[in-house]
Amino acid sequence: LPDESSSRRTCRDRPSRQKKSFEVINCVCLCLCEPDRVLVRVQDLTPENADQLIWLRARVHTSRAKGKQCFLVLRQQQFNVQALVAVGDRASKQMVKFAANITKESIVDVEALVRKVEQKIESCSQQDVELHIERIFVISQAEPRLPLQLEDAVRPDGEGEEEGRATVNQDTKLDNRVIDLRTTTSQAIFRLQSGVCQLFRETLTKKGFVEIQTPKIISAASEGGANVFTVSYFKTSAYLAQSPQLYKQMCICADFDKVFCVGPVFRAEDSNTHRHLTEFVGLDIEMAFSYHYHEVIDSITDTMVQIFKGLFQTEIQTVNKQYPSEPFKFLEPTLRLEYTEALAMLHEAGVEMGDEDDLSTPNEKLLGRLVKEKYDTDFYVLDKYPLAVRPFYTMPDPNNPKYSNSYDMFMRGEEILSGAQRVHDAQMLTDRAIHHQIDLEKIKAYIDSFRYGAPPHGGGGIGLERVCMLYLGLHNVRQTSMFPRDPKRLTP
Amino acid sequence: LPDESSSRRTCRDRPSRQKKSFEVINCVCLCLCEPDRVLVRVQDLTPENADQLIWLRARVHTSRAKGKQCFLVLRQQQFNVQALVAVGDRASKQMVKFAANITKESIVDVEALVRKVEQKIESCSQQDVELHIERIFVISQAEPRLPLQLEDAVRPDGEGEEEGRATVNQDTKLDNRVIDLRTTTSQAIFRLQSGVCQLFRETLTKKGFVEIQTPKIISAASEGGANVFTVSYFKTSAYLAQSPQLYKQMCICADFDKVFCVGPVFRAEDSNTHRHLTEFVGLDIEMAFSYHYHEVIDSITDTMVQIFKGLFQTEIQTVNKQYPSEPFKFLEPTLRLEYTEALAMLHEAGVEMGDEDDLSTPNEKLLGRLVKEKYDTDFYVLDKYPLAVRPFYTMPDPNNPKYSNSYDMFMRGEEILSGAQRVHDAQMLTDRAIHHQIDLEKIKAYIDSFRYGAPPHGGGGIGLERVCMLYLGLHNVRQTSMFPRDPKRLTP
Repeated sequence: LPDESSSRRTCRDRPSRQKKSFEVINCVCLCLCEPDRVLVRVQDLTPENADQLIWLRARVHTSRAKGKQCFLVLRQQQFNVQALVAVGDRASKQMVKFAANITKESIVDVEALVRKVEQKIESCSQQDVELHIERIFVISQAEPRLPLQLEDAVRPDGEGEEEGRATVNQDTKLDNRVIDLRTTTSQAIFRLQSGVCQLFRETLTKKGFVEIQTPKIISAASEGGANVFTVSYFKTSAYLAQSPQLYKQMCICADFDKVFCVGPVFRAEDSNTHRHLTEFVGLDIEMAFSYHYHEVIDSITDTMVQIFKGLFQTEIQTVNKQYPSEPFKFLEPTLRLEYTEALAMLHEAGVEMGDEDDLSTPNEKLLGRLVKEKYDTDFYVLDKYPLAVRPFYTMPDPNNPKYSNSYDMFMRGEEILSGAQRVHDAQMLTDRAIHHQIDLEKIKAYIDSFRYGAPPHGGGGIGLERVCMLYLGLHNVRQTSMFPRDPKRLTP
Repeated sequence: LPDESSSRRTCRDRPSRQKKSFEVINCVCLCLCEPDRVLVRVQDLTPENADQLIWLRARVHTSRAKGKQCFLVLRQQQFNVQALVAVGDRASKQMVKFAANITKESIVDVEALVRKVEQKIESCSQQDVELHIERIFVISQAEPRLPLQLEDAVRPDGEGEEEGRATVNQDTKLDNRVIDLRTTTSQAIFRLQSGVCQLFRETLTKKGFVEIQTPKIISAASEGGANVFTVSYFKTSAYLAQSPQLYKQMCICADFDKVFCVGPVFRAEDSNTHRHLTEFVGLDIEMAFSYHYHEVIDSITDTMVQIFKGLFQTEIQTVNKQYPSEPFKFLEPTLRLEYTEALAMLHEAGVEMGDEDDLSTPNEKLLGRLVKEKYDTDFYVLDKYPLAVRPFYTMPDPNNPKYSNSYDMFMRGEEILSGAQRVHDAQMLTDRAIHHQIDLEKIKAYIDSFRYGAPPHGGGGIGLERVCMLYLGLHNVRQTSMFPRDPKRLTP
C-alpha cells in the first residue's frame, strides 16, 4: 500500500490531506479536520439520492479488481452497497490499484456519486443504487489474514459443502468473537437480546414494578454452598451470588411491593452442555400478591407474552436464514398445566416415573413435544411441583403437603424460569430449613428479614440467553451470549 | 394476642374465618379465599371515597389506645392514613383490645368505612379522610422489639436533640436494611435510582445505542492486576471485571457502533471513604464517532442532562426533608473546561501544583466550588487531562503530546465519570502499553481486537450510586446503595 509510512500522523499534518484523493490515514485523531462533512448511512441510500455526492464511512466487505475497475462492497452492520472505482476523470490508475489493495474489513471514508442502477444488485441490501467513488481514505487498516471469513461464518450448516465451502466451528467463532459478532446473524441476535431486556423492563415498569440493584458479592452461600464461586475478599472469603432472590425478597419485606432486576448470575456447575453457562444474565421478578400466587404467574406470563409480541420480525428472519426454525407459538392467556396433569401425559406416553420425582431433561423435552401436539404452544407454565424437589423456602401447597406453590416455565420444551411463592413466615421458614438440614446460622440474616412483617409474595428468575436461544430456535446458549463463560471458556 | 395458637393454619380451615371480625392469620397461603375482594391503595383514599366500605392491606405504622378507642396509622410505602377502632355497633371491646395489641410494622387486612374529616390530619399523607375499621386481620405479625424505629431513622440530624429524641447511626441502619428501606427517605432514594437507570437507557436507546451484556468473570486483570478481586474458577483462577470497558470496545470493533451497559463493577480497593464501594453499578457508554471525540462528550452530557431533567421532584423533596441540600444546578449546553483552564483557576486560588499533576480529591472539591461561583453550575466536564495520569489506552492529544483526549465529569465537585477517546490502532496501543510497562502477553486479546479494522471511538463509565448521592446532595454513597459493599461490610 502506498503512503504506509505516513500513517499515524498528527493533526498538524492534515491540511495537505485535503488535496489528496486516496491515502491511508490510520490517524491518531480525526479532530476537526472536516467539521462540516456529514456521513451518510448505508441503509439510507436509495434512488432518491441519485447523482448526489456523498461521504460515507464503512467497512470493505469484499473487493474485486477487474481491469481498470475495482468493485467494492461497503458494509455497515447488516447493510451493504456496491461501490466502484474506475479509471477516468475522477480516479487515476494508481487510485484503482490503491483501492484494489485495501484489505477486507478495513474501514474507509469515501466520497462518491450515488448512481441509480438498471438491474437490481441482488447481493446487496441496497439493491437500487451503487456508488461511484471519487476519493477514498483508509481510516483503519485490517490485517490481511483474517482468522475467519464472514461469509463462512454465516453459511448455514451443510450449504455449499459440495463446492468445498467452509463453515466455521463454534470455538473458532467464539475465539474470534470480535469478527464473528460482525455477521448479519450475530448483529440480529444481539439486537434482539437488547430488545428482550427493553421489553422486559418496559412491561414491568408499566405494571408498577421498581428496578433494584442487588449485590453480587455475598458473605454466605445461600443454599448449602454447592455450585458457588469463592472470591478472595481482603482478609476473608466471599461468594458470587447464584441468584438475586434473597435480595429481591428483602426488597419485598422493605415495602417495594413489586421489583425486578437484570444482572449477572453465577453458577459454579461443571456442566458442559448446550444450555449451561457459568455466568448468565438473570431477568428477575419478585412481587407481593393479594390473595393467590397465581397473580405472580399471571404477571410473569403476561410479561413474556409482551416480549414475544414486541420482538422485531426482521431480525428473526435474518437469524432464520442461517438457522432455520419453526415459528415460535404461544397462547393468550398462557397455558398452565399442573404437575399431576403433566405426569399423566408422560405416563400415557410410556414414561415411568413416581409422583414426587423431578422431571429429567429428556422428559422435559418429551413433555414439550406432547404439549405442543395437544395445545399447539411452545410456551407454557408447569405449576405445583412436588415439594420434595424444590428449595426450602418454597411455600407448600396448603391443600396437599406433597405439592408446593411453585412453577417452572418452558419454551420449546426447555426450562427458562423457575419460581415459587416463598415462605414469608420466619417460624415456618426455620422449620423448613431444619427439614432440609440447612445450617440455620448461615441463613440467619435471611430468616430475620421476615421477623418484622412480610407480605405474601412470589417471583422467579428468567435466563436471558436461554429465552433468546429458544425463541430463535437455536441449539446452543453460547450463540446468544456475547462473551460466554463455561467451565472451559474464560476468554475473550 | 388472642388466636396465636391458630396461626399457620391451612386453607381448609378458612371458611370459619368468614364470620370472624378480628384474628391473627399469618397464614400459609391466602389462596382463593376472597376471590372478589379488591384491595384499595392508601394513596387513592380521598373524600370521594367517603362512606364507602373498603378493604385495605397495610402496615401498622403506629398504634395508640385511648379508652374505648384505638387509633392506628396505616402505611403503604410513603403514604399513610389514620384509622380508628371504637367500641360500638361494629366493634367489640375485645376487638379494640386486639387492635391495640398489634405490633408495629405488622401487616393487616382491614375492612373499613371511609369517613371525611373536618380538620385536616397533618401527620398523614391522606389528610382529608380517616378509616373506621369494622374487621381487622393480622396477615403477618412483626416481632414486638424492632431493631430501629422508623421515626428515628428519618429524623434529620440534630432535630429534637433537646427532647432526647434519637437518630439512628448508619451502621445500625445498614445492619437492619430491611427496616431502614421502609422509611420515606429510603423509598424515595431508591425509586429515584430506578429512575436514573430508566432515563439513562431511554435516552441512549433514542440516540441509537444498543444495550449489551458483558462478562464479569474475566481471565486476566486488565490494568496490571492492582485492586482486582480473585475468583476460584474450577481448577484455575479468574478475576472480577473492574469495568466493562474492554468488552464495550470489542463491541465497537464488532460494528455495534454505539453501545451501553448497566451492571456491577468490582474494585478491590481498601478505601474506607464516603464515596468508595467495592461493588457498585456502572452506567457505561462507548461509541464510534465521526470526526472528533467531543461527539462522545456531547452524547454523554446530553444523557446526563436528560436524567437531571427527568427525575421526579416529589422524591427529591422527600429526601430533602431529612437531608436538606441546595438545588442541583446545571447548564445547557454543559460547561466544558480544559485542564489548563482549571489549573489556572486553582493557581489563582493559591493551589500549588504542576501542569502534569493529577487533581487531588480536595483540589477537585475546591475546583467544584470555584466553578460554581464563576459559572453557577454543579455539573461540568474537565477535558484534556495530562497524558501521564491516564491509562495506557487513552488517546494522546495529537496537538500536544503532554495532554490527552480524555475527560472527567463532576457533580458538586466530585467525579462521577471518567472517560476518553481510546487508542484504536493496534500498533500505537502496543507502543503505549510498552511505555506503561504493561505485560503485552496479558493484554494480547485486547490488542488483537483492533487488528481487523477499528473505528475511532470513545466512552466513559458513570457510577450510579455517586450520581444519586451527589444529585440529592447526600454525603455518603452507602445511602444510595441498597446493600452496600465496602472493605468492612459484606452483609446483609
